[in-house]
Amino acid sequence: MYVRILGTAAGGAFPQWNCVCRNCQSVRVGSFSGRPRSQLQVCVSSDRTSWFLLNASPDLRVQIESNSFLYPQTNNLGRHSPISGVILTSADVDQSLGLLLLRELQPLQIYCTAPIQRILREDNSMFAMLNRVSDQASWNEISADTKFELKSPTGETSGIKCLPVSVSDHYPAYVSAKRVTELSPKDAVIGLILEDGSGKRLGYFPAVGQVDAHLLSHFGDLDVLMFDGTFWSDDELIRLQGSGQTARQMGHLPISGKGGSLDLLSHLKRPRKMFVHINNTNPMLDESNEQYRQVYDAGWEIAEDGCQLEL
Amino acid sequence: MYVRILGTAAGGAFPQWNCVCRNCQSVRVGSFSGRPRSQLQVCVSSDRTSWFLLNASPDLRVQIESNSFLYPQTNNLGRHSPISGVILTSADVDQSLGLLLLRELQPLQIYCTAPIQRILREDNSMFAMLNRVSDQASWNEISADTKFELKSPTGETSGIKCLPVSVSDHYPAYVSAKRVTELSPKDAVIGLILEDGSGKRLGYFPAVGQVDAHLLSHFGDLDVLMFDGTFWSDDELIRLQGSGQTARQMGHLPISGKGGSLDLLSHLKRPRKMFVHINNTNPMLDESNEQYRQVYDAGWEIAEDGCQLEL
Repeated sequence: MYVRILGTAAGGAFPQWNCVCRNCQSVRVGSFSGRPRSQLQVCVSSDRTSWFLLNASPDLRVQIESNSFLYPQTNNLGRHSPISGVILTSADVDQSLGLLLLRELQPLQIYCTAPIQRILREDNSMFAMLNRVSDQASWNEISADTKFELKSPTGETSGIKCLPVSVSDHYPAYVSAKRVTELSPKDAVIGLILEDGSGKRLGYFPAVGQVDAHLLSHFGDLDVLMFDGTFWSDDELIRLQGSGQTARQMGHLPISGKGGSLDLLSHLKRPRKMFVHINNTNPMLDESNEQYRQVYDAGWEIAEDGCQLEL
Repeated sequence: MYVRILGTAAGGAFPQWNCVCRNCQSVRVGSFSGRPRSQLQVCVSSDRTSWFLLNASPDLRVQIESNSFLYPQTNNLGRHSPISGVILTSADVDQSLGLLLLRELQPLQIYCTAPIQRILREDNSMFAMLNRVSDQASWNEISADTKFELKSPTGETSGIKCLPVSVSDHYPAYVSAKRVTELSPKDAVIGLILEDGSGKRLGYFPAVGQVDAHLLSHFGDLDVLMFDGTFWSDDELIRLQGSGQTARQMGHLPISGKGGSLDLLSHLKRPRKMFVHINNTNPMLDESNEQYRQVYDAGWEIAEDGCQLEL
């Protein structure tokens, strides 16, 4: 399985347009020990011809234009894309808005849970742009713990199988309280375990509210784990802004501290462990910081835009 | 009045992710006589400190990061932006999606017609992200032929006045037929006439379905006219794709031909005339083409990303 990481930041990217935190200020003036990052976008392929996006980032247009393997191939049909489909892990704006950048009448498989489809298609009329003509988006309902196969828009198998795993009952802030009562909690946020014919497994978990024994048992069998690297500490935003929510209240396990991801997952020996979905405020982005060192010392990597893996 | 053009392309930008037209193919391989373009984004200011966006493009994040005058200023509040507000001329995805890129709890004035507000806020729950806290987006209802003043989020006057002018009854394709029957046709798409204390006038008309005597009389008084440059010819997309809608059916007056914009507007002597919102398929993008020459010979310009004006 071929894996390309096109972006690694959380919502708003790094730097973030209206943020004056130390990280954002110094990366803008060029004094930062580290790199700017676009919003999280990963894609996978079994043949490097047909690609599947894991979520759809608001930066997707620029990410496609910066990666020539995603350019359309010359043909006589007017339109083409190596992008065969998209798997959504949540209805968060920074994970799903990019679908609207794929609206130019392209056949496309979209895989998401029933509640995510309902939020996007029933509560957000703009997504009708993906179904203006018959030969455009096909929406496929998936659910936690039920493995499915990724297929091309014409129904050919890709050789990649995907197991969704429930990781949080946290629906996005824009979903009304009334709507949330109608939606199944276990389908709010999923992680993905992707496997091709070779038996190698990629775990994609950009938002994880908590880690239980079930999830841990899955993680132990992975070859690569991409895990929620949003916040370093639980009160990161509150300390910077003077108010707001904790990381856990926002559906993100913090990296540091007792019960954080370094504490809970660093013992896993098999998977290569990478943090993705990194918020602009996270001190580990600064390579001169102690937190950056701590992550690598614990056997983790901090994913970078442009990183390529082969499993 | 200070005017900055951050992007000049129509929806999908140039090149467009899944398009294999001659323009898109050759710009990707570097053999094109012309420039790539991001999606249309213009902003105006009377003091170069506080800026107002004319529409909000899906490319806005990258457009802000590429233009340091839109960077936040250092302060102790955690967040800041020189962007004071946004005026929307339609609910088209390529003109309004960028609002969702301004969702990080920033005080902001948003000006749009009642139907556009209804489409965005009632029919698209994601836009609730702009009103999560009390000190965030203020929505201001505007209507055709009623002048209003642009104000900062704290209510200070900017010195810029704006007159909306109805230009088309064409609601976006994603708005259901039932919803359209509930909405006033004259508020579907507007153009803007912006004027500061000096009496100079900028006309911003990125989508114009037809030009009547009323509109022509406004145009004659302008110093700069930015006009719908989407399609060169009425059947441009149909000829490329073998099917689809004409430019006029999509709410865009074509540039060429009898009754096109070159024919109807080139006699206007006072305004500096610029085409904006240029579709990737438009042959005038290619500077070696006869159509490029025709535009300049007729006294028009083709706006480019990064262009700066002072009125």
